[in-house]
Amino acid sequence: MGYVRQRAPRGTAAKTMADGVTAVVCDHLPRLFSEPYYARLLSAAGAVIAEHGTHLMVTTVTPTSSTLPALSGAVLIVGARERHPLAIKLSTSGVPVRNIGRPPHDLKLPYADVDNFDGGRQAAEHFLLTGRRNVAAIGGPPSLPGARDRLEGLVRTLQAAGAPDVPVAYGDFTAASGTHAMQWLLRHAPGLDAVFVASDLMAAGAIQALRRAGRKVPADVAVIGFDDAPVARHTVPALTTIRQPVEELATVATRLLLTGAAGIDPVLPTELVVRESA
Amino acid sequence: MGYVRQRAPRGTAAKTMADGVTAVVCDHLPRLFSEPYYARLLSAAGAVIAEHGTHLMVTTVTPTSSTLPALSGAVLIVGARERHPLAIKLSTSGVPVRNIGRPPHDLKLPYADVDNFDGGRQAAEHFLLTGRRNVAAIGGPPSLPGARDRLEGLVRTLQAAGAPDVPVAYGDFTAASGTHAMQWLLRHAPGLDAVFVASDLMAAGAIQALRRAGRKVPADVAVIGFDDAPVARHTVPALTTIRQPVEELATVATRLLLTGAAGIDPVLPTELVVRESA
Repeated sequence: MGYVRQRAPRGTAAKTMADGVTAVVCDHLPRLFSEPYYARLLSAAGAVIAEHGTHLMVTTVTPTSSTLPALSGAVLIVGARERHPLAIKLSTSGVPVRNIGRPPHDLKLPYADVDNFDGGRQAAEHFLLTGRRNVAAIGGPPSLPGARDRLEGLVRTLQAAGAPDVPVAYGDFTAASGTHAMQWLLRHAPGLDAVFVASDLMAAGAIQALRRAGRKVPADVAVIGFDDAPVARHTVPALTTIRQPVEELATVATRLLLTGAAGIDPVLPTELVVRESA
Repeated sequence: MGYVRQRAPRGTAAKTMADGVTAVVCDHLPRLFSEPYYARLLSAAGAVIAEHGTHLMVTTVTPTSSTLPALSGAVLIVGARERHPLAIKLSTSGVPVRNIGRPPHDLKLPYADVDNFDGGRQAAEHFLLTGRRNVAAIGGPPSLPGARDRLEGLVRTLQAAGAPDVPVAYGDFTAASGTHAMQWLLRHAPGLDAVFVASDLMAAGAIQALRRAGRKVPADVAVIGFDDAPVARHTVPALTTIRQPVEELATVATRLLLTGAAGIDPVLPTELVVRESA
């Protein structure tokens, strides 16, 4: 309808500038507000978009959403998963699009990501260097490539060092799911002495489960999270974690989306941050 | 562009259904994720919108935003303030629109609201009934009609009872602003024995300032918040507050927006919830 439309600047990006950027978060709406990763990512993307003189819209779509939004302008997809109907449509639509996170194998999308595999590798090395042998893991949703990469980096590194098989439980990135996954691991692998958790919020939940089970962190069980979210400073003990540069990721992805650069899919480094839990 | 557009249903609401609903939050983007009121409100609105077979987009606009989004479909405005450029354009655009909160005097918009004035009145009555005489207040942004209504309900009720003038400090609904406002009040009205705070997050900040100043809550200073947000159960002492039915407000406003009902501007009741702080 365009009744509140800015005048479009000249040049190739004119349509994008006029129609703005829509961030499509592949998750349920309430998660948009409860997952701190989205707040960091979208606040940083919004700042870049405002610098470019255009506007950010945010929406959520899940693989089971009964409706798909009408989109115009450029689209930043956050966390496309396998068989995601909107991501599939966008990948063949010719519209300017960039995915935050490596897209699943069934999708061809330009993207920007962090080195999730190397984050898992660093966690494994830290466990090995500090004498842990019975490492377990709490993974994110297996339909999310980035979550699988974190796990694979851990497991391959441990295997190469001759460590035992890694028992894995899966969560959905919430603290409650981290608690449940940890309880499952304690029942099925009671001899574990370390756990790598694919997000800091889940790690906070896992630490609660360990405390309730009478296991001391890190004396009995070492814990490494992933994100370096604000919560990592507030767990007891403070969380050793793999830092991912969320704001930088959002900035890089948004700039590439707005400039229409093709053939570049940057992967930003992740970094072990040692605190008290491992 | 409409490359991912649902088929429009027949009937008067066809355009709205096809283009979805945009929620325009009149605040800065990072606040969208840090203010629990928006999470509650938009999650509830999204559920109603999904039931109607259409889709929710969220964006933020401030009075100083350099760009305005291109909008289509129906628009839910959240918290329009005075001289808000987008709200002013929408009020004369003929597009389906509804404001969450009583709009400022310079805007004619259909709306749904909670009874902020009566919430302030209930807080004043509770203070009077429990023997408080020197009541101060921490208000929200004065450009927001709902924030002014809360304060006015308090002040008029106290005046009618012959209580002394009410010293007022203003915050921006963040916990930090509640702390600063409370520190200001303690310097300028050291004899205060009660404070009404226009949001629970600000009240949590105010309680911290009172504790640091060595004032006991509620023995020395009674505190009443506003919202009944989750934080109200976690302050020490637990917060006495004015509950506003946020989810019901979102549901009612969204249904009225989607059905195009005119001439109805519902105002939902607020309710005193007595816990420990007053």
